[in-house]
Amino acid sequence: MEAPQLELDVQEWINTPDGQAPDLEGKVLLIEVFQMLCPGCVNHAIPQAKKVHRMVDSSQLQVIGLHSVFEHHEAMTPAALKVFCSEFGVEFPVAVDRPREGGPIPSTMKKYRLEGTPTSMLVDRHGKIRQTHFGQIDDIALGFLLGSLLSEPQP
Amino acid sequence: MEAPQLELDVQEWINTPDGQAPDLEGKVLLIEVFQMLCPGCVNHAIPQAKKVHRMVDSSQLQVIGLHSVFEHHEAMTPAALKVFCSEFGVEFPVAVDRPREGGPIPSTMKKYRLEGTPTSMLVDRHGKIRQTHFGQIDDIALGFLLGSLLSEPQP
Amino acid sequence: MEAPQLELDVQEWINTPDGQAPDLEGKVLLIEVFQMLCPGCVNHAIPQAKKVHRMVDSSQLQVIGLHSVFEHHEAMTPAALKVFCSEFGVEFPVAVDRPREGGPIPSTMKKYRLEGTPTSMLVDRHGKIRQTHFGQIDDIALGFLLGSLLSEPQP
Amino acid sequence: MEAPQLELDVQEWINTPDGQAPDLEGKVLLIEVFQMLCPGCVNHAIPQAKKVHRMVDSSQLQVIGLHSVFEHHEAMTPAALKVFCSEFGVEFPVAVDRPREGGPIPSTMKKYRLEGTPTSMLVDRHGKIRQTHFGQIDDIALGFLLGSLLSEPQP
Repeated sequence: MEAPQLELDVQEWINTPDGQAPDLEGKVLLIEVFQMLCPGCVNHAIPQAKKVHRMVDSSQLQVIGLHSVFEHHEAMTPAALKVFCSEFGVEFPVAVDRPREGGPIPSTMKKYRLEGTPTSMLVDRHGKIRQTHFGQIDDIALGFLLGSLLSEPQP
Repeated sequence: MEAPQLELDVQEWINTPDGQAPDLEGKVLLIEVFQMLCPGCVNHAIPQAKKVHRMVDSSQLQVIGLHSVFEHHEAMTPAALKVFCSEFGVEFPVAVDRPREGGPIPSTMKKYRLEGTPTSMLVDRHGKIRQTHFGQIDDIALGFLLGSLLSEPQP
Repeated sequence: MEAPQLELDVQEWINTPDGQAPDLEGKVLLIEVFQMLCPGCVNHAIPQAKKVHRMVDSSQLQVIGLHSVFEHHEAMTPAALKVFCSEFGVEFPVAVDRPREGGPIPSTMKKYRLEGTPTSMLVDRHGKIRQTHFGQIDDIALGFLLGSLLSEPQP
Repeated sequence: MEAPQLELDVQEWINTPDGQAPDLEGKVLLIEVFQMLCPGCVNHAIPQAKKVHRMVDSSQLQVIGLHSVFEHHEAMTPAALKVFCSEFGVEFPVAVDRPREGGPIPSTMKKYRLEGTPTSMLVDRHGKIRQTHFGQIDDIALGFLLGSLLSEPQP
């Protein structure tokens, strides 16, 4: 089965110039799907994503947050998310997953049938989603996967 | 100088029967002053307070949260705080510090001139505030202080 | 049942002036029973004992190591122990538990029927052994016990 | 400058069948250079190497310990090292760096001018030493390097 192509359905971007979508063409991506009031996100996944963001060259590997709110929507608004990012030192681009009229699960989360938060998605230079990992992922394992994807030939 | 008497000015209580103030008479208290979007609170002080709450007999030592919001009030409402407590497993009573008309700092925080969050306040069986520690406090040091206060004679 | 009186049967002392036994009269004691090649000792109990030693006034509370070798005696000699203490920054007094002719378990360990290492023994100002805890002990719990013992009246 | 070829000068092997050198042909290697009484080794580098050993397929990536004793030789003998490996759960092959007559630094350590312990050496499938890192190396960074080396074409 071919790996699915990444398509983010985004309501707005935070931490980007003028709120524009960042240029992701030809880059390896680490997408951290989170909710700002999810303990496993706050205590593990977000600090891990911040560490990767600090360690690597973002022209080759871009870290992105995807705020996919599927519960307690009233407490995790885009405005509250901006406070969260500022207070917790999240400096990489964060996409707000687009809410859907038909239910609590937002658009991108539903499209890829994500099980919850935190989920780490790894995308290759061709935009293919190569790994989707629900729950905490070990630092060595994450580094390993990123190192492998970056070693693949450039498009 | 005599230790000041504890008087909490509270807008509402969370995690208590019918939202009533808990009976604190004659107990040693650990009061964790926090904001739900403060990283040092979420990553250190709240987990520490949860651990103390699980370890001790609450008829002798009561752990209390005091949610003292002095910034980003719109993102840290009592409604959002309830979501936070539920998601992060905070089961001890939490008092919402009363907002003041004259400025961003709530009433109890201002009264005791607290410097920020997290702050740990230790109160003896007579209701005297014996320690006020701003920032992270080491587990051994906290245990030590609590053990000392509990060894004092009962009123 | 009355708490037993502490009596250490010691082959030699390390980290004391002239290898003399330290003066323990009237002090609360934390005795860390360990082996230098025991992982739970090296990764948890010894760092914890070092932290207590740095934090407290040793005129009131004395931290002591007790090297009770009950296996692999040839690799954990007093000479090797001295290297260990130097490399791992152990600065508090360490007693070498006296080997016995009749078996692998040394004298003090056998006398108090200790189950293994690490074991933390807590001794009050009267020299009574008040707690004997086999395995890792939580920092808050340890601080609590020490704070309680130090609050007892002086002899 | 071309990467140097790995050549281990070994007194004996531990944790291998009949004490034979393991077959390293065509494999990526993580070589953990350590001393059994070095705190940074015991608390960080050895647990990290054990984790890599458990996570990966050793037909592709082989973890090896190199016990390079340059101080306190009398306390860190091969016999003591075997006790250490058994007690600390080190199951991967460990090479004992060959002592030299002319000084305290053993043969392999001197050959590659290693600065101390812990040192992590990363070797590619062609036997070339591609990285030599003195001190603690972050889990993400280590995973990243290993993932990159494993992505290189097979010989």
